[in-house]
Amino acid sequence: MKVHEQPMRTIWVEPDGASVGIIDQTRLPHAFVTARLTTLEEVAHAIRSMQVRGAPLIGAAAAYGLCLALRGKASDEALARAHALLLATRPTAVNLRWALDEMRRALQPLPPQQRLQAAYRRAAALCDEDVALNRSIGTHGVPLLEAAWAKKGQRGRINVLTHCNAGWLATVDWGTALAPVYLAHDAGLPVHVWVDETRPRNQGASLTAWELGQHGVPHTVIADNVGGHLMQHGEVDLCIVGTDRTTARGDVANKIGTYLKALAAQDNGVPFYVALPSPTIDWTLEDGVRDIPIEQREGTELTHISGRLASGEVVSVHVTAPGSPVANYGFDVTPARLVTGLVTERGVCAASSEGLLSLFPERRAPRATGT
Amino acid sequence: MKVHEQPMRTIWVEPDGASVGIIDQTRLPHAFVTARLTTLEEVAHAIRSMQVRGAPLIGAAAAYGLCLALRGKASDEALARAHALLLATRPTAVNLRWALDEMRRALQPLPPQQRLQAAYRRAAALCDEDVALNRSIGTHGVPLLEAAWAKKGQRGRINVLTHCNAGWLATVDWGTALAPVYLAHDAGLPVHVWVDETRPRNQGASLTAWELGQHGVPHTVIADNVGGHLMQHGEVDLCIVGTDRTTARGDVANKIGTYLKALAAQDNGVPFYVALPSPTIDWTLEDGVRDIPIEQREGTELTHISGRLASGEVVSVHVTAPGSPVANYGFDVTPARLVTGLVTERGVCAASSEGLLSLFPERRAPRATGT
Repeated sequence: MKVHEQPMRTIWVEPDGASVGIIDQTRLPHAFVTARLTTLEEVAHAIRSMQVRGAPLIGAAAAYGLCLALRGKASDEALARAHALLLATRPTAVNLRWALDEMRRALQPLPPQQRLQAAYRRAAALCDEDVALNRSIGTHGVPLLEAAWAKKGQRGRINVLTHCNAGWLATVDWGTALAPVYLAHDAGLPVHVWVDETRPRNQGASLTAWELGQHGVPHTVIADNVGGHLMQHGEVDLCIVGTDRTTARGDVANKIGTYLKALAAQDNGVPFYVALPSPTIDWTLEDGVRDIPIEQREGTELTHISGRLASGEVVSVHVTAPGSPVANYGFDVTPARLVTGLVTERGVCAASSEGLLSLFPERRAPRATGT
Repeated sequence: MKVHEQPMRTIWVEPDGASVGIIDQTRLPHAFVTARLTTLEEVAHAIRSMQVRGAPLIGAAAAYGLCLALRGKASDEALARAHALLLATRPTAVNLRWALDEMRRALQPLPPQQRLQAAYRRAAALCDEDVALNRSIGTHGVPLLEAAWAKKGQRGRINVLTHCNAGWLATVDWGTALAPVYLAHDAGLPVHVWVDETRPRNQGASLTAWELGQHGVPHTVIADNVGGHLMQHGEVDLCIVGTDRTTARGDVANKIGTYLKALAAQDNGVPFYVALPSPTIDWTLEDGVRDIPIEQREGTELTHISGRLASGEVVSVHVTAPGSPVANYGFDVTPARLVTGLVTERGVCAASSEGLLSLFPERRAPRATGT
């Protein structure tokens, strides 16, 4: 998508053919700054500190982290160490593991001297695959917006509510939840997005609002508390969110607070869609509430907030009562029963085992055959 | 309750017997500052700017606003003008109107020269009545906490979730939703409060956390997005919130986001109580979602936030993407079907017409009698 009218991706290999460029997303929306990563540790830091964030982009960054790790020595030990270090950077995102396993599968069989070049090739291919996946999600999602538009007699605007940032900044390009929005907007549909602020890290108010604004998509930032009220009053036609991990039966782990919006959508008959590239499906899990570990993050994310002074200077201020303890959970799980449909690169399906298997039949357990 | 170990109320008449003292709640939690109001306009400003906030305290402040208005000239016109000006300061709080009507009822029949003294007397009585009401709410609410405590076998702690500030800062003393918490804590029950941050004005993180901390009640501040996740994992034993207006059938208008917590409570079998002094009941309304006007406030409440720099200086910073539009709804309505019970000064009742009328039988419509 575009930044200052220039098309760009969220991650790229620098002209030196080795180091990796990223947008430092912790500086948005106050400043647009890119960073150049040259070591495994810098990539791990970029993931942990959320300079890169969003499940698909984390996977891509981890893949390039492996590349940088192999630049010194491409031994089995170096590969194993880098895999372990990168895997530990974020406990919830399942396609972090997927991307790392993909890389290992491609590299492990090769002799060490061939691994480095193969690593960059595979990482670049992973990025291109992510872009293609997201564009497919967008293509499959557009009819959902068209249906919402038809349902209201093509009057007014199509009001989409989204939570957190599942836009292009969360991926290599296009985004997941926002891919249908960008495609619909570009096709001339009157889309308007209610952007949840998404406390405590404000990815909605800072990232989603910023990227929609850069692309010219009409949007309005609201506090996380507002979505239910809007749905009660018919101001939301559909919800679309992303996900960090989806279980085999369609439970969805996403940014903390997603579950509350899904409850409100159900209570008001508003369709609630989750957009996901299939690498974020964890086929080994069923019960998301019981089995998905939920990351607890630093309390300072809640007690402090960054913002611009009138002078333009960006500062961090303490916003909570002095001395009050805080707790900071990163994600919650929305049970499949609250999800109207899953929007994948292969199409839209019900949030259920049968729904997912209808799109991914290769995942069906092989039947026992008589011998 | 106590501030720096000193017992105090949120509003008082200064030693001059005329001007009115308040805690400037816009300065909390960063600074504890009191203000002295000497004119009708200063009181109206204090209400509008939320230096005083919370339905009961707004009513008390408005009563003293009338007193100050009558100091110059206690004519019918002065009374009518002050009533109208104060009533317009906040559109949602029903006991703003109630307090103003109470004052007018007491003063209108008197000759102008007796009105000023009567006004101060009636305003002081309204404050004392509020304190007594809230203490009664607390007394009736404690058994709900004891029941939650018994239900978990008196193990661990009693986890209460609250939204916004319905503590003593929102009233003259004791609070509404927090009155049972303070009484239970003082009685030795192991109460712990999950305090919703309550964006965009952060009354939870700044006011509720501050007053609980001053009184020594264990508590943890969480983002508004977190409550559903905690309920899914058994970490909330009951919710108690306040209300700005309750309809005759038990629909509840309260700070934006309350509805989302009520949905999560229902989805997880967590009791959801609303504490209210009866003056906040609007007996003229039934359908809260349809009929209660919802205040839209300045967008700057969402785009900007006040906090302390490391130096201690309090500054306002801009936190949203530059140029992105915002919408800022102050309240939402929780339908009665999601409310486990209403905790009033007369006891606990079902959130229904029958429930409310069982406690307030004087509100039953007189039956038509044959003649």
